[in-house]
Amino acid sequence: MAILAVIGGVAAGMSAAAKARRTNADLEIRVYTDEAHISYGACGLPYYISGEIEKETRLMARSVEQFATLGIKVFTRYRVEEIRPRDQIIQVRNLNTGEMTEVAYDQLVIATGASVLVPPVEGRDLTGVFKLRNVVDGVAIRRYIEETKPKAGVIVGGGYIGLEMAETMHRYGIKVTIVEMAPQIVPNMDKDMAQILENYLISQGIEVRTAEKVLSLRGGRESIDQAGFSGEEVFPPDRLQQVITERGIIPADLVLLSVGVVPNSQLAEKAGIELGVRRAIRINSRMETNLPRIYAAGDCANTTHLVTGEEVYIPMGTTANKQGRTAGENAAGGKAEFKGVVGTGIAKVLDLEIARTGLNERECQDRDLPYEVRIIKAWTKAGYYPGAGQIHVKVLAQKSGGRLLGAQIVGQAGSGKRIDVFAAALTLGATIEQLKDLDLAYAPPFAPVYDPILVAINQF
Amino acid sequence: MAILAVIGGVAAGMSAAAKARRTNADLEIRVYTDEAHISYGACGLPYYISGEIEKETRLMARSVEQFATLGIKVFTRYRVEEIRPRDQIIQVRNLNTGEMTEVAYDQLVIATGASVLVPPVEGRDLTGVFKLRNVVDGVAIRRYIEETKPKAGVIVGGGYIGLEMAETMHRYGIKVTIVEMAPQIVPNMDKDMAQILENYLISQGIEVRTAEKVLSLRGGRESIDQAGFSGEEVFPPDRLQQVITERGIIPADLVLLSVGVVPNSQLAEKAGIELGVRRAIRINSRMETNLPRIYAAGDCANTTHLVTGEEVYIPMGTTANKQGRTAGENAAGGKAEFKGVVGTGIAKVLDLEIARTGLNERECQDRDLPYEVRIIKAWTKAGYYPGAGQIHVKVLAQKSGGRLLGAQIVGQAGSGKRIDVFAAALTLGATIEQLKDLDLAYAPPFAPVYDPILVAINQF
Repeated sequence: MAILAVIGGVAAGMSAAAKARRTNADLEIRVYTDEAHISYGACGLPYYISGEIEKETRLMARSVEQFATLGIKVFTRYRVEEIRPRDQIIQVRNLNTGEMTEVAYDQLVIATGASVLVPPVEGRDLTGVFKLRNVVDGVAIRRYIEETKPKAGVIVGGGYIGLEMAETMHRYGIKVTIVEMAPQIVPNMDKDMAQILENYLISQGIEVRTAEKVLSLRGGRESIDQAGFSGEEVFPPDRLQQVITERGIIPADLVLLSVGVVPNSQLAEKAGIELGVRRAIRINSRMETNLPRIYAAGDCANTTHLVTGEEVYIPMGTTANKQGRTAGENAAGGKAEFKGVVGTGIAKVLDLEIARTGLNERECQDRDLPYEVRIIKAWTKAGYYPGAGQIHVKVLAQKSGGRLLGAQIVGQAGSGKRIDVFAAALTLGATIEQLKDLDLAYAPPFAPVYDPILVAINQF
Repeated sequence: MAILAVIGGVAAGMSAAAKARRTNADLEIRVYTDEAHISYGACGLPYYISGEIEKETRLMARSVEQFATLGIKVFTRYRVEEIRPRDQIIQVRNLNTGEMTEVAYDQLVIATGASVLVPPVEGRDLTGVFKLRNVVDGVAIRRYIEETKPKAGVIVGGGYIGLEMAETMHRYGIKVTIVEMAPQIVPNMDKDMAQILENYLISQGIEVRTAEKVLSLRGGRESIDQAGFSGEEVFPPDRLQQVITERGIIPADLVLLSVGVVPNSQLAEKAGIELGVRRAIRINSRMETNLPRIYAAGDCANTTHLVTGEEVYIPMGTTANKQGRTAGENAAGGKAEFKGVVGTGIAKVLDLEIARTGLNERECQDRDLPYEVRIIKAWTKAGYYPGAGQIHVKVLAQKSGGRLLGAQIVGQAGSGKRIDVFAAALTLGATIEQLKDLDLAYAPPFAPVYDPILVAINQF
């Protein structure tokens, strides 16, 4: 019986295993992961930490036992330490016993994911300093918050996860400060759109410090009377108390490091697998690496940007699932393709929604792509309908009614998912001219008579 | 100075006037309407009646005075009684004085709208029997509800307006019965999708009687003890008490007749203007009628269905605005086109959202179009995220991954506007193959990792 080995047990890995099983009932499928948990919705962790999702098990789509009933053997706490492509063997260590075994494979899917980029600052090992990547991280943060009731949290990095965690901390009544090294938060949106979010965060009592670098994290017994700490409280010496930046000291008893992720591609690289941009594994539209019988998928791998045709590293849960499925189907003898992404992203931050797709201004400039831009402010529903909120839509397109290049949305409830119309239009290569009379759904509880999308497009 | 005359002061008419002004600052623009109100959002009337919108003036986008400042003269309560194309003259009656005048025009936009189709049943003039088309209707219904506190309402016709008014009556605590002659409610959706809504309405205590024809409406002094009427209440003889159908008697002290609308095209027809399907005014993509200098737009006119290329009569507020704008621009010397619609519609009924676009099964069958259909049930958000609701998505496409033909959605909050992705895809002539990997926005508060749209499309 042919053996498919999968390295990684989260989105891409388990998608690959499940799809391989549906494609080929005879295959022996073995999944190895160094984690204790599999098949969990990592994107849900901020909502588990906030308590909106009561138990972490809710995040688990399927258990090891459920996969076993599908004839998929999942080995948790097993680390793959080497891939030997010529011998078609992986070397696997049982992390509980330390024992090492060799496993022969016929096909291999690498879905090793990504790791949080931890800036090499002093104090990053203090109690109260966290990253958020997996269930273990999530459980640790929630327990720390419940047990120590932190008063002041600093989030280092203002991307999606940082912002979602700002919401989480805010819900606990923690005073939140976001420190971002770049001149703006949400660096994948343009500054004008990010500014709307920034203003909103400030209005909600969240401090935003941009263009500011964190130098170190500091613990110690000094008493701090800012941010509601009383001088009488005594902290253990290994517990975080301050974030030191270029511009000052921020009192903090909770820090989240969320400056980005790096692909876990070392194992692949050592095996002679070619890497691409951002040192992520280079794959084609069938998820094939440069080596025969070896596929890669998910946050360890690259993809193609369908607007530019470029190889890009945009790790996203939804892409990981699609790539995993594609890799699994092909590894099992099927014929599937995943052509790429258009760079869609979305996040909710308290009552504001932000979303983007395609190229932003900087991305156009970096490529010397001539573009025009329009930005509008409108209502999410008919202006007279209760609960109508504000929405800002920004559209980028080639000059003179040419091809759509990208869009960004910031607004209240009902704003964010409107980005999907732009995402579909980008995939289909639409021009502004083709989009001007879109027959978008209208009724007062859903949209103004001209949907904000149409208002924006008709500015061109 | 050239004169543009516009007949009609709501969506299409006022859009035409406003756009003509923006296109040509020199034009004399005169708008005639037999109504007292102009530029109102008729689609908002159910929410005005429910009291969610406090005053009817909230529905008015702009006043006569505001249009005057733009140099647009609006004549309310003036009825255009004749168009004399050869003389370029319209005959206009002042409805307050009865006085008749002749107005010369250089360009004419006909935006006379549609009228409620009132079935010729006995008793349709009883107190308590209403139609809903304009502000006067809306004010009358709300006053009647507030003053007489009706206990049992019957809605004749289960289309969008009937359904929205079912919500409105239900909010007042009125026992609601929908009587629909067709075998299903929402006749522009397929029966399987309509059934989901029907089951929901029943679960909310709203009675749904399909395939049942109303024969007459009856007043009188008989005492009715069904539906919470007590035998001691005495009703005036001209007040509605019963709806008589083929299958029985429904006690009712409020009836809404909402079986459909017919285009107000008699004036045009008398002037020699060609009508098309459903006796609506036939226009081209520039909104030109068969007569020179005469345009038509809105609910009195037809449009083109972009999926079939056929002339269709689908009166919608959003189309009226677009057609009006196009007519106004062209009448003012510009060059605009409105190519048509894809048949998108949406409505909210209590906590359920229904939406459709493109062709449904019956429409495919009527045209001998071979089609395949897939229907799925999914979550609106990540399954573990609080407030995730159910969504049903149905997709129609040509056989073997061919062209998308239509889609229907029924589901909880966040479902309906997803139809816009399908509407855009239809406009762009997308195939199922092109849509399989759409990069739709994903984060737990917005969607499962595979958006329900993708789940449905990937069934093909």
